[in-house]
Amino acid sequence: MTLNRRSLIGAAGLAVTVPALQVARAAETAAPAAKSTTPPPPVTKILARWIQESSYDALPEAVRREGVRSFLNWVGVAIGGSHHETVDIAVSALQPFSGPPQAGLFGRSERFDIMNAAFLNGVSSHIFDFDDTHLKTIIHPAGPVASAILAYAEMKPVSGKDFLAALVTGIEVECRIGNTVYPNHYDAGWHITGTCGPFGAAAAAAKLMGLNDEQTAYALGLAASQPVGLRESFGSMNKSFNPGRAAANGLFAAILAAKGFTSSDRMIEVRRGWAQTISTKQDWSQITDGLGTRYESALNTYKPFACGIVMHPTIDAAIQIRDADHVKPEEIRRVDLKVHPLVLELTGKTAPKTGLEGKFSIYHAAAVAFVEGAGGEKQFSDRAVNDPRVVALRQKVFPVVTPGIDPAQVDMTVTLNDGRTVHRRIEHAIGSVETPMSDRQLEAKFLDLADGVLPQAQAKRVMGLCWSLPDLASAGDVARAGVPGA
Amino acid sequence: MTLNRRSLIGAAGLAVTVPALQVARAAETAAPAAKSTTPPPPVTKILARWIQESSYDALPEAVRREGVRSFLNWVGVAIGGSHHETVDIAVSALQPFSGPPQAGLFGRSERFDIMNAAFLNGVSSHIFDFDDTHLKTIIHPAGPVASAILAYAEMKPVSGKDFLAALVTGIEVECRIGNTVYPNHYDAGWHITGTCGPFGAAAAAAKLMGLNDEQTAYALGLAASQPVGLRESFGSMNKSFNPGRAAANGLFAAILAAKGFTSSDRMIEVRRGWAQTISTKQDWSQITDGLGTRYESALNTYKPFACGIVMHPTIDAAIQIRDADHVKPEEIRRVDLKVHPLVLELTGKTAPKTGLEGKFSIYHAAAVAFVEGAGGEKQFSDRAVNDPRVVALRQKVFPVVTPGIDPAQVDMTVTLNDGRTVHRRIEHAIGSVETPMSDRQLEAKFLDLADGVLPQAQAKRVMGLCWSLPDLASAGDVARAGVPGA
Repeated sequence: MTLNRRSLIGAAGLAVTVPALQVARAAETAAPAAKSTTPPPPVTKILARWIQESSYDALPEAVRREGVRSFLNWVGVAIGGSHHETVDIAVSALQPFSGPPQAGLFGRSERFDIMNAAFLNGVSSHIFDFDDTHLKTIIHPAGPVASAILAYAEMKPVSGKDFLAALVTGIEVECRIGNTVYPNHYDAGWHITGTCGPFGAAAAAAKLMGLNDEQTAYALGLAASQPVGLRESFGSMNKSFNPGRAAANGLFAAILAAKGFTSSDRMIEVRRGWAQTISTKQDWSQITDGLGTRYESALNTYKPFACGIVMHPTIDAAIQIRDADHVKPEEIRRVDLKVHPLVLELTGKTAPKTGLEGKFSIYHAAAVAFVEGAGGEKQFSDRAVNDPRVVALRQKVFPVVTPGIDPAQVDMTVTLNDGRTVHRRIEHAIGSVETPMSDRQLEAKFLDLADGVLPQAQAKRVMGLCWSLPDLASAGDVARAGVPGA
Repeated sequence: MTLNRRSLIGAAGLAVTVPALQVARAAETAAPAAKSTTPPPPVTKILARWIQESSYDALPEAVRREGVRSFLNWVGVAIGGSHHETVDIAVSALQPFSGPPQAGLFGRSERFDIMNAAFLNGVSSHIFDFDDTHLKTIIHPAGPVASAILAYAEMKPVSGKDFLAALVTGIEVECRIGNTVYPNHYDAGWHITGTCGPFGAAAAAAKLMGLNDEQTAYALGLAASQPVGLRESFGSMNKSFNPGRAAANGLFAAILAAKGFTSSDRMIEVRRGWAQTISTKQDWSQITDGLGTRYESALNTYKPFACGIVMHPTIDAAIQIRDADHVKPEEIRRVDLKVHPLVLELTGKTAPKTGLEGKFSIYHAAAVAFVEGAGGEKQFSDRAVNDPRVVALRQKVFPVVTPGIDPAQVDMTVTLNDGRTVHRRIEHAIGSVETPMSDRQLEAKFLDLADGVLPQAQAKRVMGLCWSLPDLASAGDVARAGVPGA
C-alpha cells in the first residue's frame, strides 16, 4: 500500500465536531515544523468580533465620506462596463442556471439570483480596470464587497446607513488581510483583489445578515477556502472574472454560515490556514493595529483616466497646460516628457490602431489629452485613436526616461510654434492619495461612464442616490434606479 | 502618490486582447526573476488537446473497469451522506437561490440547477471521508468530477460510454496535475482534492459540452482561478464543502468558456499561473509522460472501512481472525497489536462515547470488528460504541508501537481464554492498490451506505445501473434512479 504520513493525516480528518478537530490538530503537530515560530494572534475571531461591533455611528465622518465616494465610483464603473462583450457572454452563459430574479444588473434589464447578480456586477465593475484602488495593496476594494451586498440589499431591505457601514467594514477586512500578506502574496502570482475579496464580501454580508460571532468566523473560514485569481489571467476576460467570483464566493460563504454550516474559527492565521498557505509573509499587526480607529478604506483612490496609472501624470499635465495655460493643440510644435522607465516599458506603442492599443501608448495619451482635455473611455476608443488631429499630435510627443522621475511623476515641456515654451511638473498625479479626485471630478467620470448606457437624466438620478446613500431608507433603490427604463 | 512597480503593473493589465496580453508579459519580465529557469512545456494546451482526443474506445479495458468501480463507489458514498446535517444545512441555505430544477440529489427529493446540484452531491459524497482515494496524491478523485458531469448529464442526455470517458478523462487531468505539485502543495496546507478538483470537473464538462481546444484551455484557466480548500478546515463541514465547491467551480468554468469567455491558454504552467503560484514544486513530466497510455485513474482505491485508513489493517486482521479463524468475541482474553506510531497518535482514544469518537479509537475499531465482523458507518455509530460487548472487548485491546511496522500494516495476536493464540500479520490492508476491494465488497459497502436512505431493492437497482454504465443510453438515469420513490 503506497502510503505515507500524508495519506494517513488526510484520511483522518473525518468529521464535524471537536474530537475530529483534536485529531486534525494532532495530525498538524505530527507534520513538519511550522514556518512561523511565535503563535499568531486569533485574527479570525478578532475580525469576526469587530465585524459585529462596527457601526455607522462609530465611523469617522471622513471615513463615511470616502465610503460614499467609493460606492459612487463603483456604481459608475459597473454601469460603464455593463455592455462589454465580457458581460454579454457571462450573462448569456449564466441565464439558463440562474435562480429567482432577486437582483438586477447596472445598465441591463436581466435579473438574477443574488449570487449570480453579485458575480455579474463584479465583472462589469472591473472591465475597464477603472475601479477604485487601495494603493498599499493594489486591491480594487469596492468590487467584491459592493457587488455582494447591493445584490443582497435588493432582496432584503437594508438602510443606507447599515449598507455603508457594511461596505466600509468589508473593505476594511479585505484591505487589512491584504496588507498582512502583501507584497509577497501578489508577487507570487495571486490576483490579490480576488483572493482577499471573498473576505470583504463575506464580512459585509455577514454583518447585514446579522450573523453572530461564531457564524461570522465560519463565514470568514469558508471565504478563506475560496480564493480567486492568478495574474496570468491579466489581459483576458478572466481578470474581470476574479472580483466578480470573489463577490459571489463571499456571499456564498455567508449564506451557508448563516444556516449553521461550520468551518474553523482560526482559518486565517493557523499553520494550514489561509495566510501561511497562500503567502510567505504574514504581518498580523496589519490586521490588529488600530482596528476600528485607523481606516484603510479612507486610503481608497479613484482613477481619473481609463488607462494604466503610469500614463496618469502625463494626461494630468497635458490637461493642465491645455486648460490652465490655454495652449491649443494646433499651437504645439513638440511635447517633451521626462518619464520613469516603466512608462515606455508598459505604454511605449508609438502608432496604436485601436482604442485598446491606445491604452498602451503614452504618445496617444498625451495627444488626446491636449485635443480633448480628458482621458476617459472615449479618449481610448477607436474613434479617438484614429482622429487625424490626435494622430498628428502624437508624432510630436517625445518621452525620455529620466533618473529622479518616479512613476507617479512627469516633467512636461511644451514648445509652441512661436518658440515659446510651457512647463509643468507633476509631483502627485490627480487621483493619488495626496491629490485625490474632487467630488466634481468623480461626477464627471460617472456621467462619462454612464453616457451611452443610461440617459443622462437617469444617470444623474442614480448619482444623486449614491451621494445620499446614508439617508436612503433602502440601499437597494440604487440598484433599482440603475437599470434601463427605471 | 504611494506607488510602486506593483501598482503600475497591476493597473496596466487592462483588457481583453493581444496588446494587453503583451503588456502583461512586459510587466512580467519587469518583475523579479522567475523561480524555474527552464521554460515549462505548454501543459495547458497539451491537456486541452488530449481532453478532446480521449474517448471510450481508446480506454484500456482495465481503465474502463476502474472507472465504473470509481463511479459506483462514489454513488454509494453520495447516497450514504445525503441525510447528514451538513447536507441538510447546505440544501436549506441554497434552496432560495437555486435555478431551475435541472438535476437531483442522491437520496433526496430536492432538485437544483446543475451547479448547485453538483455542489451538493459533491458535499454529500465526502461527508464520511469514505470516498475513493488516489494514494499518490490523496486526492479523492471522483467527487469533483462525477458530481459535475452527472448533474450535467441529467440536463443534457449523455451516453454511458461518453460519460465514462469524460469521468476517466477528468480524473486523469485532476490526478496528473496533483502529481505535478504533490507533496509540497499539500504540505503547505492546501486541500488538494479541492484545488485540483476544478481542473477535473472542467475537463470532463468541457468534453461533454463539446468545447474546442481553445475553449477547453480557457476552461482549465478559469478552473485554475478557483482553487478550493485549506487543511485547517479538516474536522468541520468545510472539509466536505471543498470537493463540492470544486465540482461547481469546474462546471462554472466550462459553462463560461463554452460561450466564449476567455482566459489564458497557459494558465497552469507559466510564472504567474497556477502551479508556480500555488506550489514550490512543479514536475511537468507528471502531466505529459504517458498521457493517454498510462492511467492514474487505474490506481484509484476505495475504503472498505468508514474511518481513517490508519485503522484499516487492524479491522482487516480482526475480521479475518473472526471469520476465517472462527474466533468468537467471547472467547477472547486479549488482543495484542503491533502498530505504527501514527495509529496511536491519530486514533488513541481508549473510551469513546460517540460514534464519531469511535472513528478515532483503535480500541473500538478492533473490538467492533470482532463483534460485528465489519467496519462500516454502522460500526462507528453511537449504538455500536456503547454496545456492552464492544465496550468489554475494547478494554482487552493492547496496541504497541513497534519499529518495522509501516502505517499500512499491523501484526495482531489474539490470546483466547483457553490459552490458545491466533496470529495474523497484514502486509497490505484490504482497500490498497495491492489488495483492492473486490466487486462484491464494493457492493456490500454500497448497500450498507444506502441502508436507511433507499429501500434495498431500489439501492440494488441503482447499483445495477452503475455496473452497466457503459451500456446506458443516458447516464442521467443513474441520478434519476437514486432519488426517493424513483
